[in-house]
Amino acid sequence: MSVLRFILEKVCMVRNKQNINYLNNIWQCIKQTHGNGKMREKTLTMDTLNPQVKAVEYAVRGPIVTKAGDIERGLQQGQKHPFTEVIKANIGDSHAMGQKPITFLRQVVALCSFPELLNSSSFPEDAKQRARRILQGCGGQSLGSYSASQGVDCIRQDVAVYIEQRDKGVPADWDNIYLTTGASDGIVSILKMLVSGQGRSRSGVMIPIPQYPLYSAAISELEAVQINYYLDEDNCWALDINELHRAYQAAKEHCHPRVICIINPGNPTGQVQSRKCIEDVLHFAYEENLFVMSDEVYQDNVYSPDLQFHSFKKVLYEMGPEYFNTVELASFHSTSKGYSGECGFRGGYMEVLNLDLEVKAQLVKLLSVRLCPPVSGQAAMDVIVNPPLPHEPSYLQFHKEKSAVLGALAEKAQVTEQTLNTVPGIKCNPVQGAMYAFPRIFIPPRAVEEAKSLGMSPDMMYCLRLLEETGICLVPGSGFGQREGTYHFRMTILPTTEKLKVLLEKLRDFHIKFLKEYASLEEPKR
Amino acid sequence: MSVLRFILEKVCMVRNKQNINYLNNIWQCIKQTHGNGKMREKTLTMDTLNPQVKAVEYAVRGPIVTKAGDIERGLQQGQKHPFTEVIKANIGDSHAMGQKPITFLRQVVALCSFPELLNSSSFPEDAKQRARRILQGCGGQSLGSYSASQGVDCIRQDVAVYIEQRDKGVPADWDNIYLTTGASDGIVSILKMLVSGQGRSRSGVMIPIPQYPLYSAAISELEAVQINYYLDEDNCWALDINELHRAYQAAKEHCHPRVICIINPGNPTGQVQSRKCIEDVLHFAYEENLFVMSDEVYQDNVYSPDLQFHSFKKVLYEMGPEYFNTVELASFHSTSKGYSGECGFRGGYMEVLNLDLEVKAQLVKLLSVRLCPPVSGQAAMDVIVNPPLPHEPSYLQFHKEKSAVLGALAEKAQVTEQTLNTVPGIKCNPVQGAMYAFPRIFIPPRAVEEAKSLGMSPDMMYCLRLLEETGICLVPGSGFGQREGTYHFRMTILPTTEKLKVLLEKLRDFHIKFLKEYASLEEPKR
Repeated sequence: MSVLRFILEKVCMVRNKQNINYLNNIWQCIKQTHGNGKMREKTLTMDTLNPQVKAVEYAVRGPIVTKAGDIERGLQQGQKHPFTEVIKANIGDSHAMGQKPITFLRQVVALCSFPELLNSSSFPEDAKQRARRILQGCGGQSLGSYSASQGVDCIRQDVAVYIEQRDKGVPADWDNIYLTTGASDGIVSILKMLVSGQGRSRSGVMIPIPQYPLYSAAISELEAVQINYYLDEDNCWALDINELHRAYQAAKEHCHPRVICIINPGNPTGQVQSRKCIEDVLHFAYEENLFVMSDEVYQDNVYSPDLQFHSFKKVLYEMGPEYFNTVELASFHSTSKGYSGECGFRGGYMEVLNLDLEVKAQLVKLLSVRLCPPVSGQAAMDVIVNPPLPHEPSYLQFHKEKSAVLGALAEKAQVTEQTLNTVPGIKCNPVQGAMYAFPRIFIPPRAVEEAKSLGMSPDMMYCLRLLEETGICLVPGSGFGQREGTYHFRMTILPTTEKLKVLLEKLRDFHIKFLKEYASLEEPKR
Repeated sequence: MSVLRFILEKVCMVRNKQNINYLNNIWQCIKQTHGNGKMREKTLTMDTLNPQVKAVEYAVRGPIVTKAGDIERGLQQGQKHPFTEVIKANIGDSHAMGQKPITFLRQVVALCSFPELLNSSSFPEDAKQRARRILQGCGGQSLGSYSASQGVDCIRQDVAVYIEQRDKGVPADWDNIYLTTGASDGIVSILKMLVSGQGRSRSGVMIPIPQYPLYSAAISELEAVQINYYLDEDNCWALDINELHRAYQAAKEHCHPRVICIINPGNPTGQVQSRKCIEDVLHFAYEENLFVMSDEVYQDNVYSPDLQFHSFKKVLYEMGPEYFNTVELASFHSTSKGYSGECGFRGGYMEVLNLDLEVKAQLVKLLSVRLCPPVSGQAAMDVIVNPPLPHEPSYLQFHKEKSAVLGALAEKAQVTEQTLNTVPGIKCNPVQGAMYAFPRIFIPPRAVEEAKSLGMSPDMMYCLRLLEETGICLVPGSGFGQREGTYHFRMTILPTTEKLKVLLEKLRDFHIKFLKEYASLEEPKR
């Protein structure tokens, strides 16, 4: 009886999945059940699965995105939908949305991958010089050797020089630089070091809400305590220092707050933090003895002409040696964002200041278990921190390509904000930086009720309906966290301008129709 | 007082590290202490560090290797040592030891990295065809896009075809294939899924002793219970099924054994498992309801002409549907070993059979948090599973290069074993496969005592002395695990034949000198 039920449940799943493999699997179950009258128990089931894994959530690639993939495959196989194309605005994946790679970067990576090309006259001398230098730093002069666990020495040196220039001379020591597998890898490694204690002494990690869900996922996996501090939506998602104090004091009752994470420019919220605000955060961290993790992967993505990126490190330096020589600060960067958008290479670095020497040895040991970050990703990172100089042959093309990408993003940031704000029931803060809009959407009470009766968050239902009716794939705000009773979605500004305009138009039409459909009968229709 | 002590301890560390950065760091400490009369407490210290991180050990990149790096830098700066070169035989890093990359593989990666080269006449058509196909599978046809969390579809399909051919027609479903960041990443992900329970119900993981220390490190980090089963050194490191039963029964008293890990061909032990033995292990796993993890990254590295690699999957299939449709089996492969030795690309895959469907969704979710494995590593993996065919232009060169690498390794495996066995007090099993010799070394009781008085394992002291006196960098057996009272080291067979012979000669001289030095006064000198 229970076996039959089990099989039927699986059949229901197949209806959704439209995947022949699942059918095969069920068929095997049936054969087996008939064959020996009992089913051999599986070792790994939902009951025996690591509960920390179960607790992990990651909306950026959650159920909406899975569904979008299914619809896309359906379209390819001729299935009918009220649209001809799925537009994926769910993830900061520039090249997938049509952005072209930076030529110089790819030339250097190709030269490193196949050094015979160093003899080719079709590659510029500056690209060859970069490639030779990187290969010189690799064991056996090959990208195929493991690098040191912290990364290739000369690339770490280039990163340090880059940081010094970016921060107008604030000293950077390459001994503090660790190359990573994207920024995510570094963030998880640092969090892993910081988690200890039990019960009320368990490590607490302060994260912004809304946040990039890597943070909440890592906190779940590590069984740390998540401490939410809410960004101020009414004030362009600014970080409010009073809210930090509130969150800290409240959390102290049930955990040991040890880390504060900041994302600047913000993901999913797109704000760029003011210098004053950064100084306040660092002062707070100093006073409360917190480890500071500043996620600065969007440092090149600032669009508002009256704003600029301030690194946490530079501000810390300017606060004086009492701060600069004591506050433990890890800053993260990546090849995936900025103007290069090289997500697939999984390149990144972190700079870690004021780490205890013995702890540093432990960090290197931890990294060494995974041997090293991908060396081609390290090479890509090198190009970003060591781009062509004005006198070099690739300079003009490099800067033309870089400006074109950043110019288009600035334009799309503005178009997105402005268009969304013309839609009744949608309110969007300026997209000052990063790659996302995170507008607030009004969801009528009847729709909220319906969603709740379906066991779904209201913005999840909204995004699902949007996907089914228009082919637009966004991520519900609930995947990032938001104040109780408010609803949002995250959309990237990465589609081409033309496609972005289509997306925004369809979204507007959908939203108006959605409002109409769920308009309360009591409210006068206008 | 305690501050002074702290500073002095740091100074002592500097003596060893010979690193100016450490001195600067101390200087900052002193300035600070003088400046305000107190030191601001660090957030992250050895006391507050995650104890699971502290528990991790990874000898392959442990203290000996750090010291080797220091000596190497010292040599470059003109320091005097009784040798002119450090020979690193500590890690399976082929290219670092001079092995050349496979041309076809690098051509494909270069073409994918810089697709303009698809128009170049200097690349063969089959390499271009592979590159076009891979790019077709990437978002925006760019290696810079994130792939799906399980990897690029067409590469997963190629892996499935490869496995079917390798296993003479045993069906492989690409839905079961996951591309990974090297094999390590896949191994840790699967282990992470399997860890649950508290106290006596905590998951136990059976691993061979000696083992590759990734396993013990991951078990420490995940707070699982390590269950040692000892390989039979007297029988060429064979896996003894009675020993499995013993280890399992003993472990059942204090944990819940849920996983058995096998490394075949063996690392560090170099044995190739017989078909019969694999069948016994699978039968055991079936009976005891264990999840099977077979680390098969050395599947192309079999040197003994009378032995061959049998995949766990093929044997499982041949045991009949009752086994093939039920036993949960994850098999791991990598770009890092075999004949390509592409460690730096961090490519790999795993095939996971009979995973519960809901658990599979959880696994994909877990992987999605890290977005995707490096796409250039995925491309490298594709070449290994989809090499040039006999009618294709690159076929001859590819096979020439492949055979040259594998032929040289087979020769070096033999030279290593034979030479080591000529040394009194060293006994080496045949290096049937993989890339390592793991000889047993006799360490005189007086040396054992001296090591213990230094708080060091005897083989660690042996390897440290060897490094200091000859420049040869090996890994002590204690880093892999060994029977109480026995001592070993792991050395790779990767140096060039010429260098390997020098290494073995120096090693012999050192060993004889070492035996003489520590010969007990009571024993008659011969």
